[in-house]
Amino acid sequence: MTTKEVTCTAPVNIAVIKYWGKRDKKLILPTNSSLSATLSQDQLHSKTTIRTDPSFDKDRLWLNGIEEDISKNPRLVNCFAETRRLRQEVESKLQAEGKPVELLSHQKFHVCSENNFPTAAGLASSASGYACLVYTLAQLFELPMSTTELSKIARLGSGSACRSLFGGFVAWEMGTSPDGSDSQAVQVAPQGHWPEIEALICVVSDAKKGVSSTSGMQTTVETSPLLQERLRVVPERMKAMSEAILKRDFPAFAELTMKDSNQFHSVCLDTYPPIFYLNDVSRAIIRIITEYNSGPEGIKAAYTFDAGPNAVIYAPKKNIAEIVQLIAHYFPASNPSEYFKDPYNVLQGTLGQAKPAVEGVLPIFPPGSVKHILHTPVGDGPRILKAEESLLEASGMPKRIKSLL
Amino acid sequence: MTTKEVTCTAPVNIAVIKYWGKRDKKLILPTNSSLSATLSQDQLHSKTTIRTDPSFDKDRLWLNGIEEDISKNPRLVNCFAETRRLRQEVESKLQAEGKPVELLSHQKFHVCSENNFPTAAGLASSASGYACLVYTLAQLFELPMSTTELSKIARLGSGSACRSLFGGFVAWEMGTSPDGSDSQAVQVAPQGHWPEIEALICVVSDAKKGVSSTSGMQTTVETSPLLQERLRVVPERMKAMSEAILKRDFPAFAELTMKDSNQFHSVCLDTYPPIFYLNDVSRAIIRIITEYNSGPEGIKAAYTFDAGPNAVIYAPKKNIAEIVQLIAHYFPASNPSEYFKDPYNVLQGTLGQAKPAVEGVLPIFPPGSVKHILHTPVGDGPRILKAEESLLEASGMPKRIKSLL
Repeated sequence: MTTKEVTCTAPVNIAVIKYWGKRDKKLILPTNSSLSATLSQDQLHSKTTIRTDPSFDKDRLWLNGIEEDISKNPRLVNCFAETRRLRQEVESKLQAEGKPVELLSHQKFHVCSENNFPTAAGLASSASGYACLVYTLAQLFELPMSTTELSKIARLGSGSACRSLFGGFVAWEMGTSPDGSDSQAVQVAPQGHWPEIEALICVVSDAKKGVSSTSGMQTTVETSPLLQERLRVVPERMKAMSEAILKRDFPAFAELTMKDSNQFHSVCLDTYPPIFYLNDVSRAIIRIITEYNSGPEGIKAAYTFDAGPNAVIYAPKKNIAEIVQLIAHYFPASNPSEYFKDPYNVLQGTLGQAKPAVEGVLPIFPPGSVKHILHTPVGDGPRILKAEESLLEASGMPKRIKSLL
Repeated sequence: MTTKEVTCTAPVNIAVIKYWGKRDKKLILPTNSSLSATLSQDQLHSKTTIRTDPSFDKDRLWLNGIEEDISKNPRLVNCFAETRRLRQEVESKLQAEGKPVELLSHQKFHVCSENNFPTAAGLASSASGYACLVYTLAQLFELPMSTTELSKIARLGSGSACRSLFGGFVAWEMGTSPDGSDSQAVQVAPQGHWPEIEALICVVSDAKKGVSSTSGMQTTVETSPLLQERLRVVPERMKAMSEAILKRDFPAFAELTMKDSNQFHSVCLDTYPPIFYLNDVSRAIIRIITEYNSGPEGIKAAYTFDAGPNAVIYAPKKNIAEIVQLIAHYFPASNPSEYFKDPYNVLQGTLGQAKPAVEGVLPIFPPGSVKHILHTPVGDGPRILKAEESLLEASGMPKRIKSLL
């Protein structure tokens, strides 16, 4: 019996061809393929420590300092069961060969996971969270499998988690097999292929709580007639998007990104009752970027929106400062020190002082309509950290626990 | 040579299966059939006087007191040319038969047209306006043709104008002929068939000027992949909607109405660049009606939105007071005396005092987010007025002229 611990981080990804709809809810098999860029873990990540120890009497999991009941979450149960099953295969094989082996598959875990971005940032944390969980389990168990193989287990936790196992540009191939054996992530291009492309995340205030993506996409599958056409359209978009990335063709990449974001929100609106994620600020950002792109230099930025009002803007590095100034012009800060941190020092000046790239598109919004802007390049896949980065105390309890008062 | 004058009114119609997209821009042939209810002219109408007089030396037209240059508007030119051509056929036939005939087809007109609702009400006035023009021309010329035949001329002015030639519930059959000879309006059911159904028009403030429907629908036809699926869906919706109306099945009518409004706005959003007509207030009205419909009594109201943020709510008469109170709760008046006129005395009490039918769906909006609510039953088709209702002075000039200072 052995004590063993691994700590890893995994990145956030933002799709440019959107995932919306499952053909199998339990196996999380999608109705269409999707494609994303992985964002830098220097800015945004989930971090997970997993320890196995003979003294642990049950599996326990803390998420952002709050203990969760694993047994009540079938997605967690599936990820643990599948990685344990594969570990047991490894152990049986080594035993049959008479080789030494640590019998980890029957030991209990303590899992501690944290996101370095607040829930209030409105970023889906399930993708990075499940990617990190499954990647860390695979390291702990020393599972002899490719990242693409591993992505199928991450997919059981959260569909888009499979894409967070790679850096760069990543496709989730929907597959056709009913058992999900070919529904997996593959890398389209690594992080270093197109370093010019960066992302700005505009965090938008919204009073209204949106529909969860899990229940929303199911209602779309059940009620939207237009989804059928989307499913016919996506394969050619996947092909065109891969080509645009491989050729580093920003206008083609951007146009497809914007069209696919629009189409995803279209099928949400064609759902009954309709689902809205875009609000007036989101619409205004779309309008401003459309105007910005209509100048003589052509397409300079691409917006995309997930299941919420926040905009993610992909753009070549050289346009980032201009776009930050543009957003700051129409959506002034209510708290300037929190508005834009400028980790890469792109502004080289003061926010809100430069003349905006396009003026008079819309009236200026009330301060705080955009709460802050995060800036991040495209990044790498999950990382294994040093032992001192552990989220667990020597006792096996989390270093940070949130009181539930 | 003769002096002759006719004055008519024509109603507004609000579609429940939406028209969006032309297959022929000049002939105004649509990419799908549509269906509407005609609203009462007691509340909303266009009114047109046309006089022909040997002393007139050219065609002149005043719209809401402002003179328009007819020659610059090919849609007006087409409506005049087509009715004159038909009048000339009548004249030639009578002459050949040796019968007496007034030779009107070569005389000039003065046309004066007014809407009794302000442009600020955000209601499309082109449907009632062109329906009134063509209907009045047909009366003046005593054209021997059915209303359905006449609807093909109104269609040349504005597509949805063809539907304003009938009262009650009206279908515009898209037709298949390239010359437009079978693209026409037919009455599905007359005004008296289903008198319980009434409409509330919620006039929503919007800072942003929307895309015109003429250019918007063309961009959709050119760029929206999802429109193709909509075109496959509409024929079955037309059939189901006609059946719902004929059976007076309000839940079926309402569900189709809401789904079709949603789908129209979906294809707008799938357009590139995307077109938005719904704003946060529109979305909130959808959410509130959805909640209102989810109670034990089932569907009690149907929202629908045209090319703007204003909501039209169709509902059985017995629910109207409750819905007005509901809207007034979430969208309080900034000017109470202008908010809801209650022409049919449905409230029998004070606005904003009753407990809303559903509470806590959303926060209360700032006063004035909905400017006013108009209430109208389903109405009849165009009416011929008495001579004293003329909009023209004896001189042939408009009684009301707007100075263009």
